[in-house]
Amino acid sequence: MTDEKQAALDYHQYPTPGKISIELTTSAETQRDLALAYSPGVAEPVKAIAEDPEAAYRYTGKGNLVAVISTGSAILGLGNLGPLASKPVMEGKALLFKRFANIDSVDIEIDASEPKDIIDTVVRIAGTFGGINLEDIKAPECFEIEKACIEACDIPVFHDDQHGTAIVTVAGMLSALEVQGKRIEDVKMVCLGAGSAAIACTNLLISAGLKRENVFMLDRGGVIQTERYDLNEYKQAFAIETDRRTLDDAIDGADIFLGLSGANLLSESQMKKMAPKPIVFACSNPDPEIDPVVAKAIRPDVIMATGRSDFPNQVNNVLGFPYIFRGALDVRAREINEEMKLAAAYAIAALTNEPVPQEVLDACGVESLSKGPEYIIPKPMDARLLTVVSDAVAKAAISTGAARLPYPAHYPL
Amino acid sequence: MTDEKQAALDYHQYPTPGKISIELTTSAETQRDLALAYSPGVAEPVKAIAEDPEAAYRYTGKGNLVAVISTGSAILGLGNLGPLASKPVMEGKALLFKRFANIDSVDIEIDASEPKDIIDTVVRIAGTFGGINLEDIKAPECFEIEKACIEACDIPVFHDDQHGTAIVTVAGMLSALEVQGKRIEDVKMVCLGAGSAAIACTNLLISAGLKRENVFMLDRGGVIQTERYDLNEYKQAFAIETDRRTLDDAIDGADIFLGLSGANLLSESQMKKMAPKPIVFACSNPDPEIDPVVAKAIRPDVIMATGRSDFPNQVNNVLGFPYIFRGALDVRAREINEEMKLAAAYAIAALTNEPVPQEVLDACGVESLSKGPEYIIPKPMDARLLTVVSDAVAKAAISTGAARLPYPAHYPL
Repeated sequence: MTDEKQAALDYHQYPTPGKISIELTTSAETQRDLALAYSPGVAEPVKAIAEDPEAAYRYTGKGNLVAVISTGSAILGLGNLGPLASKPVMEGKALLFKRFANIDSVDIEIDASEPKDIIDTVVRIAGTFGGINLEDIKAPECFEIEKACIEACDIPVFHDDQHGTAIVTVAGMLSALEVQGKRIEDVKMVCLGAGSAAIACTNLLISAGLKRENVFMLDRGGVIQTERYDLNEYKQAFAIETDRRTLDDAIDGADIFLGLSGANLLSESQMKKMAPKPIVFACSNPDPEIDPVVAKAIRPDVIMATGRSDFPNQVNNVLGFPYIFRGALDVRAREINEEMKLAAAYAIAALTNEPVPQEVLDACGVESLSKGPEYIIPKPMDARLLTVVSDAVAKAAISTGAARLPYPAHYPL
Repeated sequence: MTDEKQAALDYHQYPTPGKISIELTTSAETQRDLALAYSPGVAEPVKAIAEDPEAAYRYTGKGNLVAVISTGSAILGLGNLGPLASKPVMEGKALLFKRFANIDSVDIEIDASEPKDIIDTVVRIAGTFGGINLEDIKAPECFEIEKACIEACDIPVFHDDQHGTAIVTVAGMLSALEVQGKRIEDVKMVCLGAGSAAIACTNLLISAGLKRENVFMLDRGGVIQTERYDLNEYKQAFAIETDRRTLDDAIDGADIFLGLSGANLLSESQMKKMAPKPIVFACSNPDPEIDPVVAKAIRPDVIMATGRSDFPNQVNNVLGFPYIFRGALDVRAREINEEMKLAAAYAIAALTNEPVPQEVLDACGVESLSKGPEYIIPKPMDARLLTVVSDAVAKAAISTGAARLPYPAHYPL
């Protein structure tokens, strides 16, 4: 085993197994404390909530509690390893929620594969929480599961692999288009991959102005177009009339390449055929669709982003989900709608136009950051994200009627 | 609203809503920390668990994590107020798990009333946890639900309203019998109430030596006996051949009165008819079946216990469940079996025979404690419970084959 692998295992094993614990927020030392926390005192909040369900936001942790729920059917790039094996990832997500947005988060792994069973389980336990983050559930089931849970629950249900990825990708894309001097309405995009993230990214880009007819989406069968009869309903939505069939065909003259597929699937010759000032998001993990160093050598005019922290412009979901939920929880949103997602993407993108304070530079371990090909996406350690993204999401929730509160009730940080 | 009620609400509302939070047990400050905690490092424990499920006990919090699960169908003495209203109680239980046994515990409220739906939900999420504490689920459904969950899960599933109550009651009963100089095999008991706690207490007393034919159990229809045709299967198990029909009949000459019914249901005249040196556990909350002061005045030879902290000998579940789960988790028990329950009861009872160290007296706020009519049950603040009860449970789990580990792997405290 390499040192890095052992370090990761050690990190999870010590000082105690796992990464999160439950702690008390109140004093529970004396007999009197316990009489308030449990019997007989606890009867008072129980009765208050029975009279008015909203009281649960005052007397319980519901309003700041997000469940990270998975079946383990699509764990990272590792595939369907089942619920138990997904637990470290879900605990990791809970850690990130706390670390970046002070959200209390617990992982729940569901042992079921039928969408109906998964949906029933989520819906029955949903009232415990203020929001639900679905994670690592495979396509195409994830679409049906998310849709049904959103309809049945009065709290936000958000499949981060779809929408978290989409929000951060769109943020980076908007920012890259600005640097390249292109308008989203005009550009042609090739999306390599047609899984849940690819579909969600493309849908949100379309909400942001990209024209559906300018998108070539490709799965293992090539370009998704109207003469294919092997498409599920989700892919069908992207079928266009075209005589292009392969990536080689589609990439010709494309402004944007969005890769959510696999390592090294974009060749040097394909890269060369892209339009001037291209944008390449090679997000396959851990190895991107094209090596950024190679890509830059071939096309010095490219703006590149990857999923990796060791290259500039990392598309990292942690820029999104903690703050999106923070904003949604702060106004007790019933859902996370398209406007809230777009507001998050715009807020993340806009941050790259702001001068970066010294403390942010220090936290990110860099000397300077200024908008350009190497800085189109904020750094994960940028503490300004908490304020700007959460506020944008909260405001969008209010303006679209998704919020239960008329103003963000900031949780004590 | 009284000051006490307001104090209880304030306790739940401040400093943050609720009583528990999630905290990190690892460092998550640097980019390097995050690369270990989440992508890419988290792939290592995922792969390790996919290869060997036992690795979940090393790399995740599963082994120290208990779910407190309720439907809110029988909340304290308040009745069926639904899942959301039960949340403060379940969070309170989580607080007690942490406070007394360093167990991480999260509450899950299930919105369902059909036993099958409840069972399906519990079973599907069970793998997330090291143990499941069912709470405040009404009878008779609770019996079916617990049984099915125990059979389907490979972790302890324990309905505390039944077995936690039973363990602490039996502990107190054994201790009281010792003080009164009676043998459990010889005594006659009247159990007023035939709900889930009454049935569980009586069953565990029978496991401890009480003769079934010496038990008069009464529900609203009077003595449960073989000529009644209105009994469900759970009550039927206690039907005896007798011509006694009422509490007045049954109490005549009884050694033990166990009340799990309602306020003031044991009259002074009934009390007078009990055998010499009687034992009265008047556990109705908040008002016992008979006032302890009145009872003592009528029968100075009585040993009384109640559910209240303002009288001697409080039957309090917190003496049991944190330590029972601690012991079960320490050996990764598959279940909490009858032997483990009895071991817990004996250990709790035995503690009252030990000299009480000064620090325990201080913690309990008393000058002295010595075995006798006013001290048959340990105090909740007695820190020795953690060691003696957990160890007894762990040993019983090992000796009965319920343990996955050959010795207790104590969790860092």
